[in-house]
Amino acid sequence: MTLVAQRTTTPKPEALLSALRQRFGNRFHAGLDFCRQHAHTLSVIANQPPDAVVQPLTRDDVVEIVHLCGAHDVPMIPFGAGTSLEGHVNAPFGGICIDMSLMRRIIAVHGEDLDCVIEPGVTRKFLNENLRDQGLFFPLDPGADASLGGMVSTRASGTNAVRYGTMRDNVIALEAVLADGSVVRTGGRARKSSAGYDLARLLIGAEGTLGIVTEITLRLHGIPEAVAGGICPFPSVRAACDATIATIQSGVPVARIELLDALQVKACNAYSRLDLPELPMLFLEFHGSEGGVAEQAQRFGEIAAEFGAGAFQWTTRPEERTRLWQARHDVYWATRGLAPGFSGISTDVCVPISRLADCVEATQADIAATGLIAPIVGHVGDGNFHLGLLFDSEKPGESKRVSEFLDRLVERALAMEGTCTGEHGVGQGKIKYMKREHGAATLAMMAAIKQALDPRGLMNPGKVLPFD
Amino acid sequence: MTLVAQRTTTPKPEALLSALRQRFGNRFHAGLDFCRQHAHTLSVIANQPPDAVVQPLTRDDVVEIVHLCGAHDVPMIPFGAGTSLEGHVNAPFGGICIDMSLMRRIIAVHGEDLDCVIEPGVTRKFLNENLRDQGLFFPLDPGADASLGGMVSTRASGTNAVRYGTMRDNVIALEAVLADGSVVRTGGRARKSSAGYDLARLLIGAEGTLGIVTEITLRLHGIPEAVAGGICPFPSVRAACDATIATIQSGVPVARIELLDALQVKACNAYSRLDLPELPMLFLEFHGSEGGVAEQAQRFGEIAAEFGAGAFQWTTRPEERTRLWQARHDVYWATRGLAPGFSGISTDVCVPISRLADCVEATQADIAATGLIAPIVGHVGDGNFHLGLLFDSEKPGESKRVSEFLDRLVERALAMEGTCTGEHGVGQGKIKYMKREHGAATLAMMAAIKQALDPRGLMNPGKVLPFD
Repeated sequence: MTLVAQRTTTPKPEALLSALRQRFGNRFHAGLDFCRQHAHTLSVIANQPPDAVVQPLTRDDVVEIVHLCGAHDVPMIPFGAGTSLEGHVNAPFGGICIDMSLMRRIIAVHGEDLDCVIEPGVTRKFLNENLRDQGLFFPLDPGADASLGGMVSTRASGTNAVRYGTMRDNVIALEAVLADGSVVRTGGRARKSSAGYDLARLLIGAEGTLGIVTEITLRLHGIPEAVAGGICPFPSVRAACDATIATIQSGVPVARIELLDALQVKACNAYSRLDLPELPMLFLEFHGSEGGVAEQAQRFGEIAAEFGAGAFQWTTRPEERTRLWQARHDVYWATRGLAPGFSGISTDVCVPISRLADCVEATQADIAATGLIAPIVGHVGDGNFHLGLLFDSEKPGESKRVSEFLDRLVERALAMEGTCTGEHGVGQGKIKYMKREHGAATLAMMAAIKQALDPRGLMNPGKVLPFD
Repeated sequence: MTLVAQRTTTPKPEALLSALRQRFGNRFHAGLDFCRQHAHTLSVIANQPPDAVVQPLTRDDVVEIVHLCGAHDVPMIPFGAGTSLEGHVNAPFGGICIDMSLMRRIIAVHGEDLDCVIEPGVTRKFLNENLRDQGLFFPLDPGADASLGGMVSTRASGTNAVRYGTMRDNVIALEAVLADGSVVRTGGRARKSSAGYDLARLLIGAEGTLGIVTEITLRLHGIPEAVAGGICPFPSVRAACDATIATIQSGVPVARIELLDALQVKACNAYSRLDLPELPMLFLEFHGSEGGVAEQAQRFGEIAAEFGAGAFQWTTRPEERTRLWQARHDVYWATRGLAPGFSGISTDVCVPISRLADCVEATQADIAATGLIAPIVGHVGDGNFHLGLLFDSEKPGESKRVSEFLDRLVERALAMEGTCTGEHGVGQGKIKYMKREHGAATLAMMAAIKQALDPRGLMNPGKVLPFD
């Protein structure tokens, strides 16, 4: 199925490299190591380095790079912090990596309007460090210290999307440079508008295939007066999911509600020297007034008890919260510790919350039947869960077995009216599922938009849409 | 500035009309009165009737109509409940009105997932009547009993968007028929997804210019355990706006926060025989647990007092809430009562909340200087406000004076980083502001998308984008 013009790998674009070197000096890099570090590094997807990396300082630098690449018919791959998981920053057809990490100014913070204007290289931790003094924060937490530009581009979310929404909901306006070098602004600072097509939402999640984001206006939130955190063991994944559904239905505005399956808890016990019961557990966080979080925690405890939960321990004291949540914080390294030396894949799917227990249980059964190691962590309030899949990539046939398992995982989620990715994005890794998920007509609509805005296929080619 | 192909008014498409008559029988209507009722009826924008109206019962009917209109090169104008305010349903180039009101099935309600799947002709009141038994509701309230398809198409919101968001935030998935008759589905039922371009958000607010929505998956909410309503007078619009900012900053999750200016309160007193102090007033609603709404009301009262407010009266008893909110409910008719026989225009703009007091005060001064009658109602939590503008359209020069006032209103909002419309949409009435608001490059991006998806300009031509 060919939806976008296929590119073929070309010889190094020497004329362009020399023009960029001349123009950008020490912000231009063509060394192979540097280029490899700017391609995919976080999973078994092959590393496909760009021909060079250039680091713009301003929007006008980006315009100039786009014009130069366009004039030489060379692909452009935007790069934030390099924490994406599906090969988003690979350069399968060569080209220029546009590393946005030097564009990291916080341009304005508007406390009264609860918004800020930033450059795309700002990372979420840096942003929050700079907001704290004003009693403000940006809640979205995808785990990694991703750049906000990257989070825009993958439509990221994370642990507290259940309360605060995803990047879709938290971007007010964008500035972006399109394939033809034109600069578009997608909105002002009003919190809502009905004035024309929602171009911001089109660019959010487009993974740099429609344009390069150069400025972001984000919605902020006041730091809550009180934060309560807690953990609660359940007799089964199903009981934990049912308690989650009941909690959300009852209107408790839970800020985080995370499921760890028994294997994940076991891994965390080993890694962090904890002695949690090796059962499925929910990790929760509540935001509000002192009275409000106490009420929320109490109601959750009552609901959990109805589903056979063990004791719900919670606290508003920061050091105690950290202790209770230690296992959740350590998930990544704890998982790797289960099988040192193995390769790791982090993948995600998302289903309607009513199907979450079915999907997790069937997946656990598949893991057992396939003989894989794959603990599960879920943003269960959204119906979104992750597998940390470990395997010996040197062993013959193992990669194929893993790949078939991943196909079955996605097929299972789609059969339950879910999606092949709740928050990681398509990149290269999930392109093959796009037709099954969306159908030919919907993919054709995406391709028509891509074709209209980037007719030569220069913006991050080989991502999002099927191309061969 | 020509961005989309201009159409010229054509003679009646007799061959198409006869094909539609033959196929749709008594669901086809070509009588002039019927056609006029399906064009714009709610303001001084001229009524421009379609050549005929056809009423599909199914998605496949819509596909057939789109194919027939396409084959005859005739425009299509989707119609919901006819409550839009900017000429969205006019047929300036003739064509076929596709009246979706018979597609009004509630296809499924998924209580555990807090979503429902409906046809676009379902109105919000009908939907809520059918959800109540299950303890669920769809919160968005634009005032009129609009169809959900229309609310999708105008990116509607209303009084409680401050808490629940707009249509942008409350649509999970859409099915739509594109100009070529293809049927696209924009998502499943997962609450979030990063799998490709956000086509749902592109269709939301596109006013039927990119496709015709035939099915909607909406996010629902549990009916809150307790609802508190209250009213609070302020010494000035500025004090009321400042109290609003402080309330939202402090994290009080207010469900509704509506400003009525002194003239609006006076109009309501006269119409509804109330004796409210003729001062700017905030009308509030809080949703939550019994304890939660009491805490919210108390905190709001404390904040309001800091800004010089009079007594904040509130209650959780339904009949008392209705009594307190009577003035807000009666705004439309109360306004018309200020000048019987005059023409009325309802318009809206939206600015960052920090600029709201500036914008409202400057607008009040302009109203006074121009000698107009125009009470103000605002969804102030969003920075969005409405004018109910009354004038004698028979009086020479008056329409021009009003039109110049509206231009100044929009210019003022844009100068404050706002938008020409927070929730009513562009339709015909606000096309002239699109270039000023978005700039040429951004409008060109919208036009490229329009061109890619509807190259012959058959979908609701003359709306959203400048065309001559």
